[in-house]
Amino acid sequence: MKRAKVAIVGASGYSGEELVRLLVRHPSVDLCALTSRQLAGTPLETVYPRFAGLPAAGLKFIDSDVVAIAATGAEFAFLALPHGVAKEFAGPLLEAGLRVIDLSADFRIKDAAVYQEFYGEKHTSPELLAESVYGLPELRRVEIRAARLIASPGCYPTSVIVPLAPLLRKKLIDPTTIVVTSMSGVSGAGRTVKLEYLFGECNESVRPYGLPKHRHLAEIEQELSAAAGEKVTISFTPHLVPITRGIQTTIHASLRLGANPEAIGETWQETYGGDTFVRLLPPGALPDTKNVALTNFIDLAWRHDPRTGRCILLSAEDNLVKGAAGQAVQSLNVLCGWPEVTGLL
Amino acid sequence: MKRAKVAIVGASGYSGEELVRLLVRHPSVDLCALTSRQLAGTPLETVYPRFAGLPAAGLKFIDSDVVAIAATGAEFAFLALPHGVAKEFAGPLLEAGLRVIDLSADFRIKDAAVYQEFYGEKHTSPELLAESVYGLPELRRVEIRAARLIASPGCYPTSVIVPLAPLLRKKLIDPTTIVVTSMSGVSGAGRTVKLEYLFGECNESVRPYGLPKHRHLAEIEQELSAAAGEKVTISFTPHLVPITRGIQTTIHASLRLGANPEAIGETWQETYGGDTFVRLLPPGALPDTKNVALTNFIDLAWRHDPRTGRCILLSAEDNLVKGAAGQAVQSLNVLCGWPEVTGLL
Amino acid sequence: MKRAKVAIVGASGYSGEELVRLLVRHPSVDLCALTSRQLAGTPLETVYPRFAGLPAAGLKFIDSDVVAIAATGAEFAFLALPHGVAKEFAGPLLEAGLRVIDLSADFRIKDAAVYQEFYGEKHTSPELLAESVYGLPELRRVEIRAARLIASPGCYPTSVIVPLAPLLRKKLIDPTTIVVTSMSGVSGAGRTVKLEYLFGECNESVRPYGLPKHRHLAEIEQELSAAAGEKVTISFTPHLVPITRGIQTTIHASLRLGANPEAIGETWQETYGGDTFVRLLPPGALPDTKNVALTNFIDLAWRHDPRTGRCILLSAEDNLVKGAAGQAVQSLNVLCGWPEVTGLL
Amino acid sequence: MKRAKVAIVGASGYSGEELVRLLVRHPSVDLCALTSRQLAGTPLETVYPRFAGLPAAGLKFIDSDVVAIAATGAEFAFLALPHGVAKEFAGPLLEAGLRVIDLSADFRIKDAAVYQEFYGEKHTSPELLAESVYGLPELRRVEIRAARLIASPGCYPTSVIVPLAPLLRKKLIDPTTIVVTSMSGVSGAGRTVKLEYLFGECNESVRPYGLPKHRHLAEIEQELSAAAGEKVTISFTPHLVPITRGIQTTIHASLRLGANPEAIGETWQETYGGDTFVRLLPPGALPDTKNVALTNFIDLAWRHDPRTGRCILLSAEDNLVKGAAGQAVQSLNVLCGWPEVTGLL
Repeated sequence: MKRAKVAIVGASGYSGEELVRLLVRHPSVDLCALTSRQLAGTPLETVYPRFAGLPAAGLKFIDSDVVAIAATGAEFAFLALPHGVAKEFAGPLLEAGLRVIDLSADFRIKDAAVYQEFYGEKHTSPELLAESVYGLPELRRVEIRAARLIASPGCYPTSVIVPLAPLLRKKLIDPTTIVVTSMSGVSGAGRTVKLEYLFGECNESVRPYGLPKHRHLAEIEQELSAAAGEKVTISFTPHLVPITRGIQTTIHASLRLGANPEAIGETWQETYGGDTFVRLLPPGALPDTKNVALTNFIDLAWRHDPRTGRCILLSAEDNLVKGAAGQAVQSLNVLCGWPEVTGLL
Repeated sequence: MKRAKVAIVGASGYSGEELVRLLVRHPSVDLCALTSRQLAGTPLETVYPRFAGLPAAGLKFIDSDVVAIAATGAEFAFLALPHGVAKEFAGPLLEAGLRVIDLSADFRIKDAAVYQEFYGEKHTSPELLAESVYGLPELRRVEIRAARLIASPGCYPTSVIVPLAPLLRKKLIDPTTIVVTSMSGVSGAGRTVKLEYLFGECNESVRPYGLPKHRHLAEIEQELSAAAGEKVTISFTPHLVPITRGIQTTIHASLRLGANPEAIGETWQETYGGDTFVRLLPPGALPDTKNVALTNFIDLAWRHDPRTGRCILLSAEDNLVKGAAGQAVQSLNVLCGWPEVTGLL
Repeated sequence: MKRAKVAIVGASGYSGEELVRLLVRHPSVDLCALTSRQLAGTPLETVYPRFAGLPAAGLKFIDSDVVAIAATGAEFAFLALPHGVAKEFAGPLLEAGLRVIDLSADFRIKDAAVYQEFYGEKHTSPELLAESVYGLPELRRVEIRAARLIASPGCYPTSVIVPLAPLLRKKLIDPTTIVVTSMSGVSGAGRTVKLEYLFGECNESVRPYGLPKHRHLAEIEQELSAAAGEKVTISFTPHLVPITRGIQTTIHASLRLGANPEAIGETWQETYGGDTFVRLLPPGALPDTKNVALTNFIDLAWRHDPRTGRCILLSAEDNLVKGAAGQAVQSLNVLCGWPEVTGLL
Repeated sequence: MKRAKVAIVGASGYSGEELVRLLVRHPSVDLCALTSRQLAGTPLETVYPRFAGLPAAGLKFIDSDVVAIAATGAEFAFLALPHGVAKEFAGPLLEAGLRVIDLSADFRIKDAAVYQEFYGEKHTSPELLAESVYGLPELRRVEIRAARLIASPGCYPTSVIVPLAPLLRKKLIDPTTIVVTSMSGVSGAGRTVKLEYLFGECNESVRPYGLPKHRHLAEIEQELSAAAGEKVTISFTPHLVPITRGIQTTIHASLRLGANPEAIGETWQETYGGDTFVRLLPPGALPDTKNVALTNFIDLAWRHDPRTGRCILLSAEDNLVKGAAGQAVQSLNVLCGWPEVTGLL
């Protein structure tokens, strides 16, 4: 198995840290660069003492500079930058010959106008939007294999698209009836130093936020519409809960007239039966974020309520792994032609 | 203000403990009996060291025996017993001349057949079902005032009925479209010693449970149907989250054709504008369980999503206070003709 | 009982918020002013939504200006300001005729040189140091009664001084052998927006800090030395633990030659037997922060280890109540000649 | 690297679960048996849904029967049984030709009388006590290499012995002055279904327990005495804190007359400089349980307080990894002649 030289651009947040956690243990990856404007010159183990004692512990952060990154010999770059910043790096890195896996939202939205509507700024590299591949390996394996630029999905979107997309493609679900409620751990807010994320503000607190038009709706609806073959508009209400890692998503939707509830499980089985990271729970079991914490698994279950005709789709994932860094590494594995689970089990 | 002599029957669980917390500080209540089969003879402060140093700290538990309870001079009895057990105590206590506030589900369901469907056992005192009053003071103040037997609402039901009932009464909401998602702290499971409620099983865990037909549906739908004037059937998905106290409830529903979203806030204002314990949050604010912890408040907010035509109703309460013991004390205040907030602010 | 008009100066932190929580429920206090430079003009309920619906909810913050404070008619001022800032306010407020209860460290250290050593700045009002009274009511009731300026003790110091002072006064403990280990909830760090206090950094984390010379040592040793009648120097190691409220303190020390371990309990009984807020736990019980959370109690227990000759003294308190705001209100009660427990049970 | 066939006897608790987590990822181990009386016949993934999708997910528990275990071809057996039970299994397994790594306390105490004193029952296999090796690889590598029976250290003992043993051996520390305070996550209590370990009882709670003579003292003092060359008696006070994993240990002790504080760091460097799993933190850093969670690292730091002459030794480890399963696997690596870090980084 050929090895790959990999850079993490913007490794000062939780997604970047999580990429480090996964990549230092990846058997075919050489981590050759970590970048961060503020941390340049500091060794990894000083910024994240948990990595002391591991092989890359002494690797020093360098400035987030394309020339410097390319000079390390990196063939692949993960962008763990805030949205809006990532799009400035992707083009130059591609020009320098690297393949890019972007964890931000910058290349997920195919329509620059929708990007601007949801993210409040003009997209400066619209030409790359057409090229980028939405990096959900279970649904886009072939395109990822050939991509130069991968837009790795958001944490909430992964938890919503994985259960829903195959059911919409099969026309099992009435797309006008989809109501999504999600609960996310606080790491989802990033390593952002704000009052509302202090321990004393989050502990013993459960609260909705970002209503009614959370930014992740743009990519969720884009992907669900693609699956359904028609425009899909959904309700989506996220909540913050006092755990560090994990997203629990609960979806209610009506089956289309005549659809058999059992087809939900069957469709999932057809779609994901061969996928290690999508676990279809046995009858009787329900997802629990603690079962997926620190793993790249997403757990799915469904129930049908004959009283209302609605089905309930439930998923749990680790927002930092399957919802961010793990899925990005999974895409790297696909890109490199390695077994998809390499370094992720 | 005349004083009242009060007994707590079955004070060995979290609801009973919470009743103690509230009643020992209530300015017009004399706590004259605490009962529990297992704890008989033990002083309050030994069972709950947090109450040491308070006036009732030395009060000894007595056996859960109707004659013994009546002998203490108790005029009012709170039943903090498991469902199924409470119904055996209510009749004899009423016969002994006490007024009874039951925190279990036993007298909430007016239809004995529905009780049996949801609770799996025959109701042994169906004659009392007609008499009992569903003790949600904001909606049933007059009936509570005159009642002998009050069925104090469940924690989830309170968080659902308070926001929805007035909107259904006003025909603002399409009752076929109601989807309720709730998140509850672990105290909601009671002081039950089961593996699934161990710290190590709940910490860093978010999980749905009780799908698709949680017991609380029976009373929720009964009360919503009464408000709507038609049979209402809803989806309800509860989740367990790692906090001790609190319920966050998020409701999605479609407005009826022609209904103005602003009517939601206006209807709440009309219904609850004079109620201290229902707080209608100002624009921009959303409920947070930590703001209601250890209080009898329930916080409400709403949003309208023009993209889907759905409104989102949000509530937060402390499951042990407004969702259990606090609401029961509020009913006592009504029963006794005291200001409704007595001992609860 | 004569009422008192009270101002809280600097009510934007957790101690200030806690003072509000206690004072709005205090039966003899009129809260007439809340001050904060950044929050001037904002109503209390906007800053702290948990106080909506309570009598003082609409009270607007005013600027932290002595003339403005005095103009509200305030007779007493609580200073909930950072150390270094409080000392600028105390003098002018005293001159304006108010009595001052300072929750900061500024007037706790009698020796201006020691203050400078531990707090890194020159004391600008050394003349007030002589006058100020260290406001631990159980040990200084008489002085507090007559004071104009009360320096309310720190959270850690309260948890250390209450168990140790009477034993040192009685010469039971060898003062050269005292080793104190404390664990504090994160609210002890205040409402400070720093990376290290984010939920993701504190959850699932236990860590020592501030070694080996935490600022609170200055006042701890001052008070222990006063009790012992000789200079006492101790080891003190604080830890941050993932709870919101609470300090658990564990003290190891050797008994003096010939001292009887039972004298520990007896001395505590003599000293605190009449004090509501110091709870001497029964044999077999040990302190637990959850039993004192949101109360003004401090729970004490002791053990003797014949294997080492050491005794172990254990205390638990709520750092925001007995360790800060509650104790300050207790001092107000003493100052005003009210029963000491008024508004605190 | 030759592969090894391994059985886990008593895999129904947290230590057993943690062994599974580590061994299914170990590159040279074939997990051939999981045993549990209650779980016999159930597949691993049903008992622990987090392991679904991993290679061993379908492995079924078998009865805890020596013949059945031997029949699986197991060459090594980990005993994750309660103390008292483990000692019944060790002899028969050894006779059946397996090498045994016992995670219970049964073979840690060399003196059967001390075992009886601390564990309250007579040791039934005293002849094996002489043979067993206390499996702390950093201190006993050579003996472990040749052992048939390894007594893997307890969680608290590891956190105490690693920092102290080399300092006592070097005569830097006065052994009569050692005071140990530890804080443990709730998983340390095992998967024991007791009221005191419910979420509602542990959340927002910090509490000492097991005073003054915790069982782990027996092995701590045995090992410290061996290191010191004299009988060492210490104070040890454990606390329960609301985290799932992790032990933070804080040790205060006086340096011997004339000892240079810097010798602490130097001695640790000499002893552990070549050991991957003992991380000597850089100046300025202090241990934090979250940095060692889910790893086999133990982090050490020290401070000297010239005011008291005491040094403060600080350690953090994951109680389930370096404090239990990880250390046991480390011993397996030693036994098998594999690199000590195999499967543990």
